[in-house]
Order: sequence, then C-alpha cells, then structure tokens
Amino acid sequence: MTTYRLAVVAGDGIGPEVVAEGLKCLAAATEGTDLAFETTEFDLGAKRWHATGETLTDADLAAIKDHDVILLGAIGDPTVPSGVLERGLLLKLRFELDQYVNLRPSRLYPGEVSPLSEPGDIDFVVVREGTEGPYVGNGGALRVDTPHEIATEVSVNTRHGVERVVRYAFSVAAGRERKHVTLVHKHNVLVHAGHLWRRTVEAVAPEFPDVTWDYLHVDAATIKLVTAPASFDVIVTDNLFGDILTDEAAAISGGIGLAASGNVNPDKTGPSMFEPVHGSAPDIAGKGIADPSATVLSVAMMLDFLGHPELAAKVEDAVAADAAAKVAAGAAGSQRTTAEIGDALAARIRG
Amino acid sequence: MTTYRLAVVAGDGIGPEVVAEGLKCLAAATEGTDLAFETTEFDLGAKRWHATGETLTDADLAAIKDHDVILLGAIGDPTVPSGVLERGLLLKLRFELDQYVNLRPSRLYPGEVSPLSEPGDIDFVVVREGTEGPYVGNGGALRVDTPHEIATEVSVNTRHGVERVVRYAFSVAAGRERKHVTLVHKHNVLVHAGHLWRRTVEAVAPEFPDVTWDYLHVDAATIKLVTAPASFDVIVTDNLFGDILTDEAAAISGGIGLAASGNVNPDKTGPSMFEPVHGSAPDIAGKGIADPSATVLSVAMMLDFLGHPELAAKVEDAVAADAAAKVAAGAAGSQRTTAEIGDALAARIRG
Ligand SMILES: CC(C)[C@H](C(=O)O)[C@@H](O)C(=O)O
Ligand SMILES: CC(C)[C@H](C(=O)O)[C@@H](O)C(=O)O
Repeated sequence: MTTYRLAVVAGDGIGPEVVAEGLKCLAAATEGTDLAFETTEFDLGAKRWHATGETLTDADLAAIKDHDVILLGAIGDPTVPSGVLERGLLLKLRFELDQYVNLRPSRLYPGEVSPLSEPGDIDFVVVREGTEGPYVGNGGALRVDTPHEIATEVSVNTRHGVERVVRYAFSVAAGRERKHVTLVHKHNVLVHAGHLWRRTVEAVAPEFPDVTWDYLHVDAATIKLVTAPASFDVIVTDNLFGDILTDEAAAISGGIGLAASGNVNPDKTGPSMFEPVHGSAPDIAGKGIADPSATVLSVAMMLDFLGHPELAAKVEDAVAADAAAKVAAGAAGSQRTTAEIGDALAARIRG
Repeated sequence: MTTYRLAVVAGDGIGPEVVAEGLKCLAAATEGTDLAFETTEFDLGAKRWHATGETLTDADLAAIKDHDVILLGAIGDPTVPSGVLERGLLLKLRFELDQYVNLRPSRLYPGEVSPLSEPGDIDFVVVREGTEGPYVGNGGALRVDTPHEIATEVSVNTRHGVERVVRYAFSVAAGRERKHVTLVHKHNVLVHAGHLWRRTVEAVAPEFPDVTWDYLHVDAATIKLVTAPASFDVIVTDNLFGDILTDEAAAISGGIGLAASGNVNPDKTGPSMFEPVHGSAPDIAGKGIADPSATVLSVAMMLDFLGHPELAAKVEDAVAADAAAKVAAGAAGSQRTTAEIGDALAARIRG
C-alpha cells in the first residue's frame, strides 16, 4: 500500500463544491488499487480571513509542506479587498513552495465545442513560469489617492529562474510527438527580461537536439491562438504572459470549465499543487451548478505527477467522454448539477 | 484652402508599400475638396540605422514636431537587434510626442470573415494608454549572460497619466450608442498599478453620468474576446495589456490586415500619429502583396482626428465595401497586389 498525504485547500466561492467532486473522482480512480490518499483539509480563504485576519500563517505553511501534494479549489472573494487573498494565499503558496512550473495543457476533446469555426486538432501545453516576473510583488505606490500618485510594478527575472523552467519545457517537448517549443515574450519592448529569456532558450536548446523551437511576441501569440491553435506544441513563457495566454487557450478549447493546471516543483523541495484554472466564480457559488470537470482533470494531472499515468489517463478519458456526451445531449447536457457531473465522472472512471 | 503638414514615416518591411497606398487614398479622398496635404518623407528605420547608427535624432524629432499629423507604416527589421528600432524610434515618437491615447477600433464589417463561428456584431474601441506602464523602458540587467543574471522591467503608472487617458475613454464612450467603459487590468496581482487604475476610474466616472462601466481582469478579457466580443463597447487599459488585447481583437474581427490605430495627443502639444497595428512583416516585404487596408483605415482615422468625419467615413466605407467584395470573390479576392487593392480603394473613395 502506498499512502500519499494530500493537503486540500478548497478555498472560496465554488472551490469547495468542485473540490468535493475532485475527491470523489480520486476515490473512484484509486478504488481497488494499492494507492491511498490521506487528506488534510485546510481552512484558508475569505472565511478564515474575515474571522482572524490571517491569509496563510507560517504554521499553515509548515503543515502544508508536510504533504506530498495539494489540491486547491479557488481563491478570491468580493468581500475581501482584491489582492489580499490572491497575493497572501494563492501566490504565496506558489512562491513559498517554489512551484516554478505552472503546467497548463489545452486539448480540444473530440465532440467538444470551440468558439472557433475551424479549431483543428488543438493539443498543446503552456509551461508558465510560476515564481518570477511581474508576479513577484515588487513595486509600490507613493502619494496614494492624490493627483501626484505614482505606482510601480517590478518584473524580476533571473537566469536561474528562467533556465530551470525553460529546461523543463524542453523536456516536456522531448516527450511529445512534435517536439517543438515556442518561446513567447515581448523582447522588442521589454528588452532586458525578453533578451534574458531568448538567450536562455538559445543556451538550453542544444541540450535537446531533437527539439525545435521558435519565438513569438505575446501579441502575435494571441492572434495565432485563434487562427492556428493546432500549430502549437509547447509554449514556454513568463508568469504574466502565461496567465493571459492560458485563459485564451482555455476559451478556444472547450472553455474555462475544462482547464486544469499543475503548479509543479520538479525538484520536490516542496509539494506540488493542482488546481482548476478558473476562479472562485462568486456569482454561481453555493448553487451547486459549477462544472467540476477542470478540478477532476487537475486530479488527473496530480496522479500523473505522482507516477500513475494509467490512472491519470482513466480520469482524463472519463472527462473527455463526458464532455462529448454532454455536447451531444445539447441543452439537457448543460443542466446537470455539480454533484451529478461528479457522479457521472466517477461512474465512468469505475468503468 | 486648408493645408495640413503631414510627416510620412514609411519605415521598414512592408511599411513603404502600404504607406504608398494610404497616400493614394488620401489624395482620392481630398480630391475636389479645399483640403491639401503637404507631405515630408522621413528616412527613419533599419536602412538609416545601418547607414548612420541613428534611430531618431533631436533634429528628426524637431522636424517632425513641425507637422500637424504623422502617417507611419511599420518599424522593425530582423537585421537590427530587437528593440533598437522599436524603442529608439517607434516608442520614442509615441513618448516624446506625448501620444497618450492609443486608439484602436475593432469592427467586423458585414461580409468579412471571423475565425469565430458566432462573432456577432463586433464594434468596440480599445483606448490603450500610450506613454506609461511596462513600456517606459525602466529596468535593466546585471551580470548579463552569467548564471547570476537578473533582469528587471519596471511598470511606471501615474495618476496624471492614468486619469487623462481614462477621461478620454469615457468621453469616447459618451459619444457612442452603448456608452459603456470596461476597465481591463490585473488588480488582484499587480495591486499597486491596478488599484491606481481602479480608483482613477471610480473618480472620473461621475463626470460622465450617462456612461456605465465595469471591470475585467486581463485574463478574463481574452476569454470574452472570443466568447462574447460583441458585448464590448469601449475598453480602457494600460500600454502592455492594450498591446496584447488589440492583436487578439484584430484577429477576431477581420484580421490584422484591417486593424488601424491612432496614437493621439489630445492636447495637441505634438502631432498625432496614425499607423496600422500590424508590423513590418519582413517575410513578405518587397513582394507587393501586403494588404494596405489597415493603413488606409488609419488615414480615415487621421481625417476624422483633423475634423473631417465625412471624409473619414468615405474612406472607411470604401474599405468595408472592398473587404466584403473580397470575401465574396473568394480565392480570387485574396490574390490582388498591394497596388491593386490601393487602386480599388481609391476608385471606391472617388465614388
Ligand atoms: C487568481 C490569480 C492570482 C491567478 C493568477 O493570476 O495566477 C489566476 O488568474 C490563475 O491563472 O491561476
Ligand atoms: C512594434 C511594437 C513596439 C508595437 C507595440 O508593442 O506597441 C506594436 O506591437 C504595436 O502594437 O504597435
């Protein structure tokens, strides 16, 4: 029996609803195997902040570190000032646990609908840097709320930080059929950071003689995502560009309801964290109508990360089959509750 | 007779080819009117840089300032290190001439094709800030090309700079049918800059009681641009987000070949500059196959800016009619040369 310690951060809004279904499907996938997941629930997010003023204490962090993996629902709530939970909890986890690879696959499952009239065979992965760039929280403001206010945001990029994520992206590409990496940045304007990225890719690429690469400005990448998304294989990019592009990527490949992600620390100096790309969706929270598919796919990524690709495939296949069935069912398919979708997925996983 | 002094910066790649057609259409539009354009051509771009090492000298700048408006083709060439011409010429013009409003309309002309299967009636304007944000060129690099390299980019945002562009965006919205402004930023992560933008919109909005507004994170905006683009009216955003979103906006509404822009200095302390959103496209430069429509639409924006909306409408109508005819003609429609398209547009403008 292998037992994994799983930290569960259900979080805000629809987080707890979708995480419940994720755990349901995890149970279904591991049923009858020699794998067990021992879960610890962490009370983090808006409710905790309102009660105690805390976002993520040192004690929370230490306790979370004592786990193998993390499943996170969603963070952010309109009753908390914007940024407090995002920076103080979600980003703090990614940074403190050195989850420098934010892995975000996009696949258009057969039968699933895209807003594009000719989407083609979309199947690519965005490797988004997770611990640097404009997300570092450097910057500040002077003379706030006066006519002379000045606010800065500093993007910090290091060779160390860029090199490790670029190398990871190339290794991902090496394991795929097309073996191609596209570096996305804006090196004609953000010359310091952009040229660091470009030079690093040039230096790392020779380690992977089978992998080809090219470069695209971030603005051009948003065009290609709607005109030729099937042409992408692996995209590597910085924290902010990755945030932006992966939402667009989700939108063209089945919607944000199907977009999963892994915040991976490949060096395993801290637990990796799996979470849907969507947010806490306060407008539909508590109604039991959120689609848990992205969380279930994040569970698949977690299983894959832990070295169980066959279980991961089972879970992913279940979501793909369900998505196709849902589209075929038309309006009826989109009126299921969160729990009904979770039950249907769990049943498919059990086979 | 009113005579305008027009500075022409044809620039690199396809720049000279499309600018020639823009001027052809300008001549057609002003034929038989009491308007004249006296043009001065400026030799700026890759060729000049290779010959002299200069991008934009003080003398160039002074000479350009002595004009009413500028028509720019495209800047950037693969034989020049990335950033040299973009920062040293194009952005220098925008910054030095205080062109703080980068106006980028998106319209899907009837008959024109979108990669979206249900684009709807797309008709919105992005008001992109032009003189601040991550484009200021602050930042630097230490220990370049060593394992300890660190590169920073600083986004600088001021109340002064944000307030004037926000006010402009609201005034644009006030003159439109739906009278709605959407602020796009990422204030849950870039808290200092983001909250400055949000507070500024909150402060300016009451000056425009007829105009409604809402807020969208930049990642969510990339989704809405492919799922519900017709719902946008006026978007106001920072320099970098505006760069990214307007390329996606162009892609969903007829393509980058139709995207026009104005770099406007509303205070008229310097000339405003009109340019297609597309780049210098070195791969097709010199072949005479570039589509000049975006430049011709930029000429329309210039005429409108100079106070001749009826002439602007004539030019825009010609491009819209031509785009529809081109799509109706199928493959044949897309095989015309740059000059043929320019001739067809000029003929339509003449009526
Ligand atoms: C909630 C927010 C801080 C987060 C991000 O910007 O990374 C989200 O948009 C995401 O993509 O996971
Ligand atoms: C060429 C480049 C500097 C420019 C920009 O980023 O502003 C271009 O992409 C644009 O959108 O006009």
